[in-house]
Amino acid sequence: MNNSSIINQLTEAFRCLPGVGPKTAQRMVLYLLQRDRDGGRQLAGKLSEAMDTVGNCESCRNLTGQKICEICSNRARDASILCVVETPADVLAIEHSGAFRGYYFVLMGNLSPIDGIGPAEIGIDLLLKRCRQGVKEVILAMGSTIEGEATAHYISEVAKPLGIVLSRIAHGIPLGGELDFVDSGTLSHALEGRKTL
Amino acid sequence: MNNSSIINQLTEAFRCLPGVGPKTAQRMVLYLLQRDRDGGRQLAGKLSEAMDTVGNCESCRNLTGQKICEICSNRARDASILCVVETPADVLAIEHSGAFRGYYFVLMGNLSPIDGIGPAEIGIDLLLKRCRQGVKEVILAMGSTIEGEATAHYISEVAKPLGIVLSRIAHGIPLGGELDFVDSGTLSHALEGRKTL
Repeated sequence: MNNSSIINQLTEAFRCLPGVGPKTAQRMVLYLLQRDRDGGRQLAGKLSEAMDTVGNCESCRNLTGQKICEICSNRARDASILCVVETPADVLAIEHSGAFRGYYFVLMGNLSPIDGIGPAEIGIDLLLKRCRQGVKEVILAMGSTIEGEATAHYISEVAKPLGIVLSRIAHGIPLGGELDFVDSGTLSHALEGRKTL
Repeated sequence: MNNSSIINQLTEAFRCLPGVGPKTAQRMVLYLLQRDRDGGRQLAGKLSEAMDTVGNCESCRNLTGQKICEICSNRARDASILCVVETPADVLAIEHSGAFRGYYFVLMGNLSPIDGIGPAEIGIDLLLKRCRQGVKEVILAMGSTIEGEATAHYISEVAKPLGIVLSRIAHGIPLGGELDFVDSGTLSHALEGRKTL
């Protein structure tokens, strides 16, 4: 089998996936060809459909196959609270926790002037428009990286004139985390953010 | 996003791949949607093509997109020696080693009467036909599992009347392997198969 064979082409194509090297790609290809052709056909169909139809929700910028995503279309959620996150994966993680019943706004990144990512790229105008639609509290749930903090600071500045409550998600020791396994940045955050009992 | 969204359907479809659980599938989907739609489209196309066109080589039973695979079509190889292996992955591994210039025959499994895999399923008739076409030596390169040994024994019995040399690939200590890290089955094989210097 040289590089022109369809098997090699497929192996090469699988390497576009994150964490898939030549050995894993080969294993996936041989597995599908020998044991699960229907699964492979199904994957090909869904993949092709998703690549062509998934865009950004017109209300929250999250990835969706519709114009408005399912969370934004759900009228049973709490419209007074908006959680601003960096990525679609953050939305999935918060939804999975079941701890939040408001709406989301997905920046699809963080402010990073050096990479040409300014307020327009993270959809600040749309975010401010959302904030004016009955939102009482905005939770800034970006990570505590330099870019995350800068983005949170920027949003709090531009949203201040709207007179809504702005909050930042808590950073500290994870549940079940032991102090001596936690990095010093997290530890100093946890100390600073201590609560009186 | 509930289970009917295209994003969830695609995540579910990715789980047909070996070693891909819900978290990895989600990471793959979000990665492709956010960063590599062209890679995703390419993968979908190749996948669909391969699932529909790849069959077994009419000469060696290996997986191929053509009627005769590229190794069997290569007239520059040594037709006097035939290496019998269990799977297409074994062919790739031996080719990768560069230590063999003959042709292959791929059983696509091992004899396993309990699973309904008999001589017909592993292509013994085709193998014997190949053996009659100028082959002088057949190397039996199945693994040293019970099924592998039984298959090697069966093939050596049916091929004996053809008057060709039959050999079994050597089992022993891997290169760079330390004796105390090798399992006892391998160790006893290595002792039995010792060579006088």
